Amino acid sequence: MAVYFLSFLVCFALRAEAFALEPRLTWQESEISLTRFQVQDVYNYSTLLLSDDNNVLYIGAREVIFAVNSQNISEKKQEAYWKVTEVKNEECSRKGKSKQTECLNYIRVLQPFNESALFVCGTNAFQPVCDILELNSFKLAGKNEDGRGRCPFDPAQSYTSVMVDGDLYSGTSFTFLGSEPIICRNSQHLSYLRTEYAVPWLNEPRFVHADVIRAPENNPDGDDDKVYFFFTEVSVEYEFFNKLLIPRIARVCKSDQGGLRTLQKKWTTFLKARMICHSPENNLIFNVVNDVFILKLREPVIYGVFTSHLNNVGMSAVCSYSLSTVEDVFTKGKYMQSATVEQAHTKWVQFNGEIPKPRPGACINNEAKAMNYTSSLNLPDKTLQFVKDHPLMDDSVAPIGKRPKLVHQNVTYTQIVVDQVTALDGNTYDVMFISTDKGMLHKAVSHDMDMRIIEEIVLFPDHQAIQTLLLSDKQAKRYIYAGSSTEVVQTPVAFCEKLASCAECILTRDPYCAWHKGKNSCVNILAESNTDRLLIQSLNGDSSHCPASSPILFPPPVTSLVSSMASELHPSLSSMPLEVQSSTDSDVLKLLPPFLSDQGQLVQVHATFHLFCHGTGPKDSHFLWEKDGVKMESCAKDAILPLSGGNVHILGWVRDIATKDAEYRCTIETVAGRKSSRVFVRVTGSLNPGWSNELSRWKSAISEHSNIMEGWKKNWV
Amino acid sequence: MAVYFLSFLVCFALRAEAFALEPRLTWQESEISLTRFQVQDVYNYSTLLLSDDNNVLYIGAREVIFAVNSQNISEKKQEAYWKVTEVKNEECSRKGKSKQTECLNYIRVLQPFNESALFVCGTNAFQPVCDILELNSFKLAGKNEDGRGRCPFDPAQSYTSVMVDGDLYSGTSFTFLGSEPIICRNSQHLSYLRTEYAVPWLNEPRFVHADVIRAPENNPDGDDDKVYFFFTEVSVEYEFFNKLLIPRIARVCKSDQGGLRTLQKKWTTFLKARMICHSPENNLIFNVVNDVFILKLREPVIYGVFTSHLNNVGMSAVCSYSLSTVEDVFTKGKYMQSATVEQAHTKWVQFNGEIPKPRPGACINNEAKAMNYTSSLNLPDKTLQFVKDHPLMDDSVAPIGKRPKLVHQNVTYTQIVVDQVTALDGNTYDVMFISTDKGMLHKAVSHDMDMRIIEEIVLFPDHQAIQTLLLSDKQAKRYIYAGSSTEVVQTPVAFCEKLASCAECILTRDPYCAWHKGKNSCVNILAESNTDRLLIQSLNGDSSHCPASSPILFPPPVTSLVSSMASELHPSLSSMPLEVQSSTDSDVLKLLPPFLSDQGQLVQVHATFHLFCHGTGPKDSHFLWEKDGVKMESCAKDAILPLSGGNVHILGWVRDIATKDAEYRCTIETVAGRKSSRVFVRVTGSLNPGWSNELSRWKSAISEHSNIMEGWKKNWV
Repeated sequence: MAVYFLSFLVCFALRAEAFALEPRLTWQESEISLTRFQVQDVYNYSTLLLSDDNNVLYIGAREVIFAVNSQNISEKKQEAYWKVTEVKNEECSRKGKSKQTECLNYIRVLQPFNESALFVCGTNAFQPVCDILELNSFKLAGKNEDGRGRCPFDPAQSYTSVMVDGDLYSGTSFTFLGSEPIICRNSQHLSYLRTEYAVPWLNEPRFVHADVIRAPENNPDGDDDKVYFFFTEVSVEYEFFNKLLIPRIARVCKSDQGGLRTLQKKWTTFLKARMICHSPENNLIFNVVNDVFILKLREPVIYGVFTSHLNNVGMSAVCSYSLSTVEDVFTKGKYMQSATVEQAHTKWVQFNGEIPKPRPGACINNEAKAMNYTSSLNLPDKTLQFVKDHPLMDDSVAPIGKRPKLVHQNVTYTQIVVDQVTALDGNTYDVMFISTDKGMLHKAVSHDMDMRIIEEIVLFPDHQAIQTLLLSDKQAKRYIYAGSSTEVVQTPVAFCEKLASCAECILTRDPYCAWHKGKNSCVNILAESNTDRLLIQSLNGDSSHCPASSPILFPPPVTSLVSSMASELHPSLSSMPLEVQSSTDSDVLKLLPPFLSDQGQLVQVHATFHLFCHGTGPKDSHFLWEKDGVKMESCAKDAILPLSGGNVHILGWVRDIATKDAEYRCTIETVAGRKSSRVFVRVTGSLNPGWSNELSRWKSAISEHSNIMEGWKKNWV
Repeated sequence: MAVYFLSFLVCFALRAEAFALEPRLTWQESEISLTRFQVQDVYNYSTLLLSDDNNVLYIGAREVIFAVNSQNISEKKQEAYWKVTEVKNEECSRKGKSKQTECLNYIRVLQPFNESALFVCGTNAFQPVCDILELNSFKLAGKNEDGRGRCPFDPAQSYTSVMVDGDLYSGTSFTFLGSEPIICRNSQHLSYLRTEYAVPWLNEPRFVHADVIRAPENNPDGDDDKVYFFFTEVSVEYEFFNKLLIPRIARVCKSDQGGLRTLQKKWTTFLKARMICHSPENNLIFNVVNDVFILKLREPVIYGVFTSHLNNVGMSAVCSYSLSTVEDVFTKGKYMQSATVEQAHTKWVQFNGEIPKPRPGACINNEAKAMNYTSSLNLPDKTLQFVKDHPLMDDSVAPIGKRPKLVHQNVTYTQIVVDQVTALDGNTYDVMFISTDKGMLHKAVSHDMDMRIIEEIVLFPDHQAIQTLLLSDKQAKRYIYAGSSTEVVQTPVAFCEKLASCAECILTRDPYCAWHKGKNSCVNILAESNTDRLLIQSLNGDSSHCPASSPILFPPPVTSLVSSMASELHPSLSSMPLEVQSSTDSDVLKLLPPFLSDQGQLVQVHATFHLFCHGTGPKDSHFLWEKDGVKMESCAKDAILPLSGGNVHILGWVRDIATKDAEYRCTIETVAGRKSSRVFVRVTGSLNPGWSNELSRWKSAISEHSNIMEGWKKNWV
């Protein structure tokens, strides 16, 4: 027995290594029943707004707005349909747009208007309109304001907006053709302001995010609240083989009122800068920003998810930026200027001349006020002309640590939200939730400079692209809401209670989770109070404080490997010799190890792989193989050998080619009954480098646990 | 039986699909005993020169030059050691270079000097020298000429050279530090010429190739012979986040004598242009040229192998260019000019002013002669000053077909040579031999616009980078010579004789190979004469003309799959029912299908996979598993079931993690004997898209062969 156990330990190490490559904590739909919201024939659940105080989630979809219970989104509270008229639909389709898809009303803006109303806009068959949604009646006021500049014409166009003190700041396009990009403010009490329609200001932008950062109360500079816009646009400053995309951050000041003559009704505070997200070691350049989330701390942190359009690398990255770095670029950085070379070519270079005062693009701060400029309306023409001609900074915004926090292969990250958790060690951890275009949610934790994906959650098993992510960060019950083209799904931020043992609970290194000695279960620390003495948490994965009596299920029961581990640890199964009993002295029909469930694997797309099952049964035994519930006939084979007692030993195998993730099931069928085993085979494009962190984590876990295993061994021998 | 056969056909289609992903014709070292040349303690076999008339291959290595039999390179004919003196070695190491490696004499130039001598240069401990090697005595003349400009100082530096009519044209660096790049001509009878030492001329170039293209006799323009240089350098014309590398073609005219005052002892004909190698569909940019081969036809074709330094994509590409496109750029294209912007920035833009006459950079052709300019020495100053300031063309050299001929993932192509074969259909095919940095040689054939890899040859099983490739294109016996840091290997251009059946011979679609009906074997057509009527060749893979009697081994016997196919087709094995006989009525000890050899697979690196074997034997039967000849103990398991006749059925399996290609062997051991089966499991980084061509080829082959199979079926049922 001792020998067997030793060999088991060696195998274990090898297996753990293999597992490091698979998302060890991948939560499949079947393991975590997520709450979903979906209404038949309603599509494009792309706009989400949370009213945490009222426990309401507002969902803007195509031609309808819903209010659902934010604690259980399957519970619909109200709905307001907002359909295009037949006339508009016809008119739009006559202009060459699709009657069934484009010429409908896609809700794109859903912002709080006041305590009892929302401000909403929709594309309205390429004639954008805005309206007020009364929350009591959940009816539209019927204002039908012109939505141009606040909402795109085309549902396929990018847009972003943020409501600040009742004013809507939006980045969108201004025309039917989508050719005129605009960042503008629509206000009840402040002047309407917009960007110049000029390449240096906006050059084919794709807007991804907008948000406000409030100036600290009584700040010494007398600075203003600022609204930041994030987008990818075509570079003017670089020359490349072809169009070079570039990620930008732009900002305007809230008190901007435009110029009096120069820049009349235009921003006098619009400045933009490059965002850098490069991985210098391997010369990876992430030049497309897909989404941004601003963690509004005392020193705000900007998190962005990036991809690259250069060499189509199929990689994504997360870069983070401190707001002070951004502000340094805007308030102290050099500007770029354009120059005409040889009468024909416009080239952008650093501006080295004298910069007018007040500094162009600065808010009306104490410095400006000291010069008697109390409003942008009375700024000197020199300053205004300069900002009009020099909206682009020469300095770039470098990420924290000068490199991405995370680079991931074979994935396209679409959205990001970031939560903060104060763990039991007193430290606060940033937890990132990053969605993919294939329906997955990655959960990553930042430890020092390093960022690790600790969980992967299958939000949309049909691999739908996640278009919207929203975080509800109430103290106890935190959720992520994700919208796709066909539904909204709600997931808790952690699945602590699914982790059955103390070791698992610790090894996930999830700052939300701790082992509760009293309850003998893994709990979410946010839901517990004053129980610190009862909770065990170690974010470096040290499970040595786990009570010795707690069951060690290791690795955790989320993968096919577990069945094999469990069977090896379970006394009744483990005591079964590998040379199995002859068929006379036991139940006749049975599958024998290795079960199909032991053969879980990660297979490269288009590679061949084998699965096999064997067992004993009466003479009429034969195998049935199924793939995703469909009988496999062509390539399944059996070998049957008569055993001494009149029964047979039957071996069955399939050889298949990996095209997509699939569940395989082998069943011995006889007139007497059937026994089956199943396994989920994952198909991957290529190696995921992120899991090497997982690997080292498991390796250390194994060495930590070898003592415990040695203890078990002694009891067994 | 019929049912079994049908199911076999279906399986077959699936298997072929899997095989399309593997290099179907990968020749392992064991299958093709290649001829090798290696001398103990001699390294860096990087310079090769062929004297086809004398059947001699000259090899320049570190501190020694060899002459070997070019038909059998293992046969050394002569050697000439050329060691650095102890004094030089010391001196060099005092300058901070490595005494053991850098401060030695690396032979870098090996060029024909005259009938009985070679011109040779070596790095000589960072003091490059050149000498004459007398071929009769195989001794150096001891001239010890200064090698600066002809040979690099540093063995790690790039260099290229070509001997034209006794003059050496070279691209290298001129100084100890390697900071001064130079393209120069060293001549006995013509003036010494070199490039200006200026960024616009050469900007950190990495030289890869140089060759001469002769002007056609009596050409109407009276044009000159031209020497072309290929290199990668840092772009001056583009602005990017960081240094942007760019592949260049440069050229000079043979009759150039420099200018009289301006450009004295400098090229007056040096012009350079961008080489484009982009894949527009997926935005792949290959901006580093690694090697070039010029196929000197009436209309020469330039073949280049490229990689990318942008986003580290691990891809390589082959692009080809027609010389006329290149010449159009140089003779008709626009020039670039630099302009200073705002006193501080140099920007390059198209030159749109008036171009002086004669055209700057043109050879002294009829046009120049008509203007009374008979030599570069009397060209007008305007023309010379222009070429001095405008060496870079604004037009780029676009590849044939506007895209790469081939793009391959997870490979770094290092060198290329191209052969031409006139197939039996009368068409001439370009056959490319492309080496990798991992010791592989890819053989690709161009059909119309498409280029397909038809073979992969393991030249260096230890995955050494291939530094030099040389083609010997004699009519009958063509070879490729490949040099690495430790040896030179010689491979024939084709392995026709290894293809055992007509179907295989045809299905490789190798233009060198045809099926010889008389000899009943696959032959190299270049070695056959006047036997056209006896030869079958079909480069579209149509094997329907194969004689019905020839054995159809299908797929060919280079992979593990074949054993399974063979066993299924071989009458004695195929007639064995899948429900195998009980152990009493046959030999006791045997392995049963599926054999290990049937389980050949392509496994993703770090993925887990399973292999299993089963069979019958006496009671003491047990399995021995070996991986690359080493016993696997930890993770191999058995299950043993007693059979009715007193013997046992034994099932053994291993679960392993793919780290590198390995051979696995399972053996049933008993006192009575042993039976074993083996398989080669290949480990891959990720999917190789090039094999999709293979797939379609196999698919069509399968449909073509289904008739034959149907015939077999009828005979069997």
